[in-house]
Amino acid sequence: MPPDDRAATPRLDAQMVFLMEADRLKSVSRATRIHDGSRFENSAEHSWHIALFALVLGEHAEDEIDTDRVIRMLLLHDLVEIDAGDAPVFGAVDAAAVEAAEQAAAERLFGMLPADQGAALRAIWEEFEANETPEARFAKSLDRFQPPNLNLAAGGGSWTDYGVTQDVFEAKMAPKIARGAPKLWHWLRPRVAAFFSAAR
Amino acid sequence: MPPDDRAATPRLDAQMVFLMEADRLKSVSRATRIHDGSRFENSAEHSWHIALFALVLGEHAEDEIDTDRVIRMLLLHDLVEIDAGDAPVFGAVDAAAVEAAEQAAAERLFGMLPADQGAALRAIWEEFEANETPEARFAKSLDRFQPPNLNLAAGGGSWTDYGVTQDVFEAKMAPKIARGAPKLWHWLRPRVAAFFSAAR
Ligand SMILES: [Ca+2]
Repeated sequence: MPPDDRAATPRLDAQMVFLMEADRLKSVSRATRIHDGSRFENSAEHSWHIALFALVLGEHAEDEIDTDRVIRMLLLHDLVEIDAGDAPVFGAVDAAAVEAAEQAAAERLFGMLPADQGAALRAIWEEFEANETPEARFAKSLDRFQPPNLNLAAGGGSWTDYGVTQDVFEAKMAPKIARGAPKLWHWLRPRVAAFFSAAR
Repeated sequence: MPPDDRAATPRLDAQMVFLMEADRLKSVSRATRIHDGSRFENSAEHSWHIALFALVLGEHAEDEIDTDRVIRMLLLHDLVEIDAGDAPVFGAVDAAAVEAAEQAAAERLFGMLPADQGAALRAIWEEFEANETPEARFAKSLDRFQPPNLNLAAGGGSWTDYGVTQDVFEAKMAPKIARGAPKLWHWLRPRVAAFFSAAR
């Protein structure tokens, strides 16, 4: 036994290295502001918030879904931003460069875990990214549905910061939200329209 | 049809009021600092972090557990702090007053949801608080296991702020962490001991 009484626990050691590295997601800033507009949201609290959206709104998904799988996906979906940063949806981004950076980040971060677990969690993240299964489509839609709700609460938020108009919003967001959650898009659309009308 | 095209969706309306109220958890500050010590952690990002702990460390629970139920519990466990605030574990608190405030908060917050869903989610929170089922015991242990790991990363964190010694830490934390996760306590204890030895 080593003098400090630490047993050999390589599996748990690796898991803890991963979990403490994950803490850095709390320092990744997003373009969206929290409800009162007082500061930018970070990607860790955003992940919590949309996991809660999944828990509460799962019944509104377009297809039959496993809500717990959606929640797992949303807990993991932004981890790659620890290395790759958050790409603002209304900003100008090089999609191929973002994807390459995120793949490298996934390799590094999930690679910290025991191999079997790293592969299993990375598979959940890849499923989210591929946006094909009912769970991934709903998760992706929630990821796009939450920020406009925060913008409405904050009186403009990232729409104001990026000079976004209703046309731009609808063109960019309608397909993304409606794909996995048409009912949520139908609910959101008139509220956003009312905001932009009042702001004119 | 009303002029703004909003259909009558009382169930979804209520769920969205709840989810936007939940955003306020991002403004509840905890006694623990994030990994680099740069700022205090908030209860929303803390909830994300320990849900991720559950996802990764579920295999180390003392009893057979439903990891997804633990995750649901942890997503919800701190919501009452929106009204009741976070009671620092090393601070002087009136436990009965805290519990009364948290029960009132649960009544108000879960009461925003459709009645069936509010009752179901409140039951998960009550299960966590009761700390009796295997899932609740593991969830409670994770809630106590994460902060000392952040303190170790931050070089003292809330231990320094509250003048906590190794004896106080062991007396307060050992039973709480070991109850649902003795293996995690066994892993943590020598690391904390090494920190306090080096700090002497
Ligand atoms: Ca707490």
